[in-house]
Amino acid sequence: MKLNCDMGEAFGAWAMGLDEDIMPFVDQANIACGFHASDPFTMSKTVALAKKHNVTIGAHPAYPDLVGFGRRNMDIAPDELKAIIQYQIGALQGICQAHGTKVTYVKPHGALYNTMMANFHVLETVMQAVCELDNSLILMVMAIPEAEQVKALAKQYNLALWFEAFSDRLYTDDGRLTPRKQANAVHKNFDLIEQQVLQLSEQGTLITESGKTLAVHADTICVHGDGDHALEAVQRIRSVVGKR
Amino acid sequence: MKLNCDMGEAFGAWAMGLDEDIMPFVDQANIACGFHASDPFTMSKTVALAKKHNVTIGAHPAYPDLVGFGRRNMDIAPDELKAIIQYQIGALQGICQAHGTKVTYVKPHGALYNTMMANFHVLETVMQAVCELDNSLILMVMAIPEAEQVKALAKQYNLALWFEAFSDRLYTDDGRLTPRKQANAVHKNFDLIEQQVLQLSEQGTLITESGKTLAVHADTICVHGDGDHALEAVQRIRSVVGKR
Amino acid sequence: MKLNCDMGEAFGAWAMGLDEDIMPFVDQANIACGFHASDPFTMSKTVALAKKHNVTIGAHPAYPDLVGFGRRNMDIAPDELKAIIQYQIGALQGICQAHGTKVTYVKPHGALYNTMMANFHVLETVMQAVCELDNSLILMVMAIPEAEQVKALAKQYNLALWFEAFSDRLYTDDGRLTPRKQANAVHKNFDLIEQQVLQLSEQGTLITESGKTLAVHADTICVHGDGDHALEAVQRIRSVVGKR
Amino acid sequence: MKLNCDMGEAFGAWAMGLDEDIMPFVDQANIACGFHASDPFTMSKTVALAKKHNVTIGAHPAYPDLVGFGRRNMDIAPDELKAIIQYQIGALQGICQAHGTKVTYVKPHGALYNTMMANFHVLETVMQAVCELDNSLILMVMAIPEAEQVKALAKQYNLALWFEAFSDRLYTDDGRLTPRKQANAVHKNFDLIEQQVLQLSEQGTLITESGKTLAVHADTICVHGDGDHALEAVQRIRSVVGKR
Repeated sequence: MKLNCDMGEAFGAWAMGLDEDIMPFVDQANIACGFHASDPFTMSKTVALAKKHNVTIGAHPAYPDLVGFGRRNMDIAPDELKAIIQYQIGALQGICQAHGTKVTYVKPHGALYNTMMANFHVLETVMQAVCELDNSLILMVMAIPEAEQVKALAKQYNLALWFEAFSDRLYTDDGRLTPRKQANAVHKNFDLIEQQVLQLSEQGTLITESGKTLAVHADTICVHGDGDHALEAVQRIRSVVGKR
Repeated sequence: MKLNCDMGEAFGAWAMGLDEDIMPFVDQANIACGFHASDPFTMSKTVALAKKHNVTIGAHPAYPDLVGFGRRNMDIAPDELKAIIQYQIGALQGICQAHGTKVTYVKPHGALYNTMMANFHVLETVMQAVCELDNSLILMVMAIPEAEQVKALAKQYNLALWFEAFSDRLYTDDGRLTPRKQANAVHKNFDLIEQQVLQLSEQGTLITESGKTLAVHADTICVHGDGDHALEAVQRIRSVVGKR
Repeated sequence: MKLNCDMGEAFGAWAMGLDEDIMPFVDQANIACGFHASDPFTMSKTVALAKKHNVTIGAHPAYPDLVGFGRRNMDIAPDELKAIIQYQIGALQGICQAHGTKVTYVKPHGALYNTMMANFHVLETVMQAVCELDNSLILMVMAIPEAEQVKALAKQYNLALWFEAFSDRLYTDDGRLTPRKQANAVHKNFDLIEQQVLQLSEQGTLITESGKTLAVHADTICVHGDGDHALEAVQRIRSVVGKR
Repeated sequence: MKLNCDMGEAFGAWAMGLDEDIMPFVDQANIACGFHASDPFTMSKTVALAKKHNVTIGAHPAYPDLVGFGRRNMDIAPDELKAIIQYQIGALQGICQAHGTKVTYVKPHGALYNTMMANFHVLETVMQAVCELDNSLILMVMAIPEAEQVKALAKQYNLALWFEAFSDRLYTDDGRLTPRKQANAVHKNFDLIEQQVLQLSEQGTLITESGKTLAVHADTICVHGDGDHALEAVQRIRSVVGKR
């Protein structure tokens, strides 16, 4: 089981996330590409940091909405969306190339991620964008009960997938995340987080909001690099899933 | 002698340039990368157009100044400038890769171009940016009398150069462009443009503002894709330098 | 019957619209405020032009989506949307104040306009934004069959309304615009446009797509300042509704 | 002696500064207007906070350079610069109007501030921008030895001035700030800061880098709302200059 984390979310003079502290404990860095966060210089420093710690680099493309941090849905036509994704992946590839490293995977961010997991037409556009550019790139998607459908779609585009689960989010019985506005949507209790990670990595299941046991086959677990106790949380999750 | 032209300078809903008309007549397309002009979808369409006409693609990176069209100097620190350039080249590479084609050269735009030709520290930063990313990329620079210095610098970075001259600009005796605010800075007379192109391509010289004959060893001539008579001008210049 | 037209839609180096030609023929200029189009200098020149021709100035606020020209819906929380609208109105007021003139009305643009006419919760947020800032500002909205509901809402906020109809758009039987993707959604025939304007201004009705006569009580008709025959169209519409 | 502080420098999801903690201790809030920092919603919350604490509100306009935080000089033509400044002041006025309060003064930010204090042609453009909009707005400028020249210029535009000094910056013998790259440019020692504030407010002088006593007639002292010990520093400075 791998750990992935959003990284490089600073923007210009504004800091975000504890990238330097967190990087040593994760396997995969989802690096923002300038559309919802980051800027070329931040990306360059983040790529250098990931390389230093031998962390696999993924592009984290988003809708063009900096002030909204890519969290607002935008109704973008498929051809334009493809170009938007390819531009961002390419930009990060350029920065990686300059550092003698490379982009291995793609994980869409925020509203784009949510929309593609809810609307498979958008997911297909994302797959087309990635596979047109380079079908050796791996697409990271949410481990949902409809995983077989997602795999079938990916197969059409000859695209490998990494499924991810969330360490600190409460799931519905349908295998989706409970909405953030719901009071208990995000686990704050470390024991609960550890328990969810342990169960995900050892049994491939988790406990949903109604107490049901749900099968979730994940390749990687998303952890968070910002917030008050981010470092401690990541360290404890790391110790659960085992050494890098 | 090749012809190069700025392309893909539309932005979202705003058109600019006669790309479709001009593309068949040029050899090299300097494609804007989203910092002074263009956007991912415009870049995608422009790359497709260049590929269709078998035109060599160059990245046209700029300062981050969309509203100023990259024409205003910005005092950006070298490390940040490198990342800004690498990001833009990479973004265009991503779009090109998705279209099964590639970026062959880099020509900085506007204020960045002017600054690097006036300040060789900035030129060196540009060279570092390009060569760190991929030293098989060719850098397009202005054919100035100090070309030997520029070549020596490029040699340090193992970077090939293409020197360009301007078809419709009046040169000072120092081999620089007369400033645009000077009334006669831009040739509007087609015969004069033809004459300058002919002399550049056949004799490697041009006539300066004082009437002096100046040696200018250019590999490519910059033509313009916008303005009232752009197409006619490009066609006439094409006929002077010979078929593609 | 007044004529209103979107103005100041250039952005930096990019032109849009025939503002100088059209301005003398309209009564109300909806001036873009920098979020979907325009920039401070363009706004300044547009305000000066409107003032010169004694044209009433309206703010034309939009979602923050320059590359999408404000035409894509964005799911923005009410409190943020209010601030976005107030910022834009204020910015235009600042420019107007510098020219010794003022903003008289507000007409939301593009996706924001469409959304508020389809979702009265959003309309209410727009009304709150305007009335908090200055309830002597008039809100321009679409003349829809549900006008009484819109008026009742406006009354709560003590806000005056101007209803607008469209000169060149085909209406559904429900009094809404047929979607642009429908082939006949936009009248291209000048006689048809003239006929619609005449009927709107003299009888307060128009002919819908099924041939029904629909009552549409409009205070102002929206005309277009860009496109091939914009000037001729505006001149003919002007002659139908009478001199300014 | 008043205290002024930059406020509202968050941007979208990115925090900056301890506005809530600091606001009660200052007299004047320089509120960013969206060009180097802030966004409409942040401005709205900052204006509400300033109003709650009865703090005088100033517009803090900047060059259009979000990623560079307005700290990079940009060569903008005077007419455009005027519009850029008026747009930003107007935008903040709009937000203020919606909160039942107003903009009292204008303090240019970052590179714009430095440039106008070094180049009186730019200062004059700033004065024109402000006075065209509303000559009851007060312009906040640096208290420099050339204050009489600045006053004479302001008088031409019938503009009132507030001169500011810096609590924690080392001055040159010429009455300018030592450059930030100089090791001792910023006082970190609280006693030194207190001493400088005390001397400024009681004797209208400060000690320069060579140990000289320099006359500095300031109306207001600039304090900082971000950094590790910002709150403690502001509280101590407040206690030196006396209660609000």
